[in-house]
Amino acid sequence: MQTLPNINTHFSDWYNEIVAQAELADHGPVRGTMVIRPYGYAIWELIQRYLDERIKLTGHENTAFPLLIPESFLKREASHVEGFAPEVAVVTHAGGKKLDEPLVVRPTSETVIHYMFAKWLHSWRDLPLKINQWANVVRWEMRSRPFLRTTEFFWQEGHTAHATLQEAEEEVMLMLNEYVRLAQEILAIPVVTGAKSESERFPGAQKTMTFEALMPDGKALQMGTSHLLSQSFAHAFDMTFQDKEGATQYPHLTSWGVTTRLIGALIMTHGDNKGLVLPPRVAPIQVVIIPIFKKNFDNSLILHQAEAIRAELAHLGIRVQVDADESKTPGAKFYKWELKGVPMRIEIGPRDLEQGIAMVSDRLGLEKVAYDAKNISNCIILKLEQLQQEMFARAELKFHKQWHKAAKLAQFGPQLEAANGLYQTGWCRSPECENKLKEYKAMTRCLLEEKSFDTCFNCDNPSVSDVLVAKSY
Amino acid sequence: MQTLPNINTHFSDWYNEIVAQAELADHGPVRGTMVIRPYGYAIWELIQRYLDERIKLTGHENTAFPLLIPESFLKREASHVEGFAPEVAVVTHAGGKKLDEPLVVRPTSETVIHYMFAKWLHSWRDLPLKINQWANVVRWEMRSRPFLRTTEFFWQEGHTAHATLQEAEEEVMLMLNEYVRLAQEILAIPVVTGAKSESERFPGAQKTMTFEALMPDGKALQMGTSHLLSQSFAHAFDMTFQDKEGATQYPHLTSWGVTTRLIGALIMTHGDNKGLVLPPRVAPIQVVIIPIFKKNFDNSLILHQAEAIRAELAHLGIRVQVDADESKTPGAKFYKWELKGVPMRIEIGPRDLEQGIAMVSDRLGLEKVAYDAKNISNCIILKLEQLQQEMFARAELKFHKQWHKAAKLAQFGPQLEAANGLYQTGWCRSPECENKLKEYKAMTRCLLEEKSFDTCFNCDNPSVSDVLVAKSY
Repeated sequence: MQTLPNINTHFSDWYNEIVAQAELADHGPVRGTMVIRPYGYAIWELIQRYLDERIKLTGHENTAFPLLIPESFLKREASHVEGFAPEVAVVTHAGGKKLDEPLVVRPTSETVIHYMFAKWLHSWRDLPLKINQWANVVRWEMRSRPFLRTTEFFWQEGHTAHATLQEAEEEVMLMLNEYVRLAQEILAIPVVTGAKSESERFPGAQKTMTFEALMPDGKALQMGTSHLLSQSFAHAFDMTFQDKEGATQYPHLTSWGVTTRLIGALIMTHGDNKGLVLPPRVAPIQVVIIPIFKKNFDNSLILHQAEAIRAELAHLGIRVQVDADESKTPGAKFYKWELKGVPMRIEIGPRDLEQGIAMVSDRLGLEKVAYDAKNISNCIILKLEQLQQEMFARAELKFHKQWHKAAKLAQFGPQLEAANGLYQTGWCRSPECENKLKEYKAMTRCLLEEKSFDTCFNCDNPSVSDVLVAKSY
Repeated sequence: MQTLPNINTHFSDWYNEIVAQAELADHGPVRGTMVIRPYGYAIWELIQRYLDERIKLTGHENTAFPLLIPESFLKREASHVEGFAPEVAVVTHAGGKKLDEPLVVRPTSETVIHYMFAKWLHSWRDLPLKINQWANVVRWEMRSRPFLRTTEFFWQEGHTAHATLQEAEEEVMLMLNEYVRLAQEILAIPVVTGAKSESERFPGAQKTMTFEALMPDGKALQMGTSHLLSQSFAHAFDMTFQDKEGATQYPHLTSWGVTTRLIGALIMTHGDNKGLVLPPRVAPIQVVIIPIFKKNFDNSLILHQAEAIRAELAHLGIRVQVDADESKTPGAKFYKWELKGVPMRIEIGPRDLEQGIAMVSDRLGLEKVAYDAKNISNCIILKLEQLQQEMFARAELKFHKQWHKAAKLAQFGPQLEAANGLYQTGWCRSPECENKLKEYKAMTRCLLEEKSFDTCFNCDNPSVSDVLVAKSY
């Protein structure tokens, strides 16, 4: 067993070590790539299961579009190619020959999906088109970190086409709100939402809505985005439809996505010096049962009790495991399952068995209590729910502690540079003032609707509305 | 509405048209690629849902390995590179620069997974390693057909490592049997299993077990494979472990996979001149309810009844939809849902409503009967199950009708060339005799354990055991 670096003093090392030691992911042979190991992938599957159901319930259908896109497609939308060209991987040869036209490995699928939408769309009756895909995408990254930034990552990307701008705008907000629910209710990560500034928008979008979390080291993490695309995509791909009056119209498009980065946010937001702490709703193992064997005792009785409790919990849909490995001490097991962030632990020893109880403790260290073994399941269900709420409450407290309001960059800039954190301030919306943030390694994260400052953080022009400023992942 | 080509006289055209008209898939912009549309993808999701559960119940865990593999990896196993080099797509540039080493887009993941297995494997305690991934792979195909052969396709690939050869052999058969169950019980497609001949084995495998179906045109379709890999993969990637006695050993490896090709098999096996016919277990819509509106009648009463039946069926887990589109005639709706292969249809008109009944018919045309609207759900569940069985029985009958036994190629070769079909015959196992089959556009499909012929289909040497011979997709 290796010890973990201290989370308070060596956050970045702690992160890398916990990813490795909890067997969430490993580095692939190609620089910047990642192998998601079974325990990490099981978390992703739980996120997928929840979100996929929500995506379908809100009227979208799953599809699969090709991985390889003609290079020329990317160039059809001017700002799109400008944004993505520097980071694409390009297939130049295939089937033993040089290709006539190089193909890019999709960095995102707007272009190929819009090409197909244009084929399928004829009349207003075909609208809205509302599709989604769970896919891998490749963006060549210079500095990679498992889950947070990898050359290949996994995501879902939703793409829709609507007859009116208003409908498209509603779609953007519908999915943003779904994402916020995923973050807060499932991952127990508090977030703030708002529009991105012009310079931070998705290449080719008219408006990018983001939801941002704040990591314990005071850096912001973009958790996902929902875009209102500019109509230039529809123009670029000749995507038109006949409206009810027979006139030719261009549809209004949206796209939205979240990625395996969410797992990185989960690790950072809740982890501690013992390792991962997983919210029950995305914990691959919610409860681990550890039989405490004893010499000169019929240990099969303990195992039998452990198995009976496991079966009862599993029957109720709880993800539960018995760790009956006889080659390991209970202490080694406690260490392992704490490292893996399992929310609850049940211990059963000879004396517990005699008394008809089981010792139940939780990963947050709230309490260690004896439960009546016969009625344990309802207590566990309740307790898991309490842990989920408690984890969100704790994360929210940390979030607000690091959220500051300040009027002028000259004052808060040095603080931000030294100690990170999220700063709410006023902004005139000029790119020149936004650029000043770079001097403190910070950037705008999202625009707020609130207006609590009269002037810009940098110049003396009036503030349009508040903006959140932070360093970021 | 376009008419479908006749399935008996224009099978290949019929296939292409049904894929397009039922909106299962479309051609992507890059030659040989495919877009899987919502209706086709929903079938794939049902296949995935069933198989993923079986894969997990048999002790495997899901993972994600990188898409891009260093070209040199492919070369480490001699026959593997020989098999795959001609069909890989190669990334030569990324992030705006030429790469030091080209990367192949995975045609299959043995090499990168074995590289990682070698990192993770130390002791016999780490074995068996049993992982799976649902992934996209790319193989450059000259002649593509939707689902059956596309440059990019979707699959699951399982990869395992075992301490002993016997354990690896058991794994190969375990997963082969799981696949047979999927084919027969879920897809209602009868299959035959056996080993591939040496020339038809997976590149780098010591043994390839296949399960083969026979399409209505008499051509065989490989549905999937389960491989015992040669130990050369373990050697190529320095994959060793310490056994219980402390000696260094190479593990025994397997891999197994099925692809989106299964959807192609489903379309061909069950389809008819009206379109798709989907077995209930993989039908995205199992029951469609069609209200028959009438002038001078309060049609909201009919809609209300349709909705009540829909809700009751949905509550029981049946995938059901009401088609209440008032712009279409009932006839147009019948045509559409028959084309899409929905197994059952319920009609409710004014007179049915008065009598408290609903007219129920099935896609196989077995019967059209009036059911008591109050007790309809149990009848529907029973009927869906009967349809599933009936579809398998019909397919099995067709399969056996086209399965012939014949001693000598000189006799059955011309028949096979003219009219297709599956021929069981004897074989000495020499590649020279196998090569003779090419003269009739046929090949060996799989070896049988049965031995019903004394000599080879071509020469006079003794037959080792029977072999199945056919043309193939």
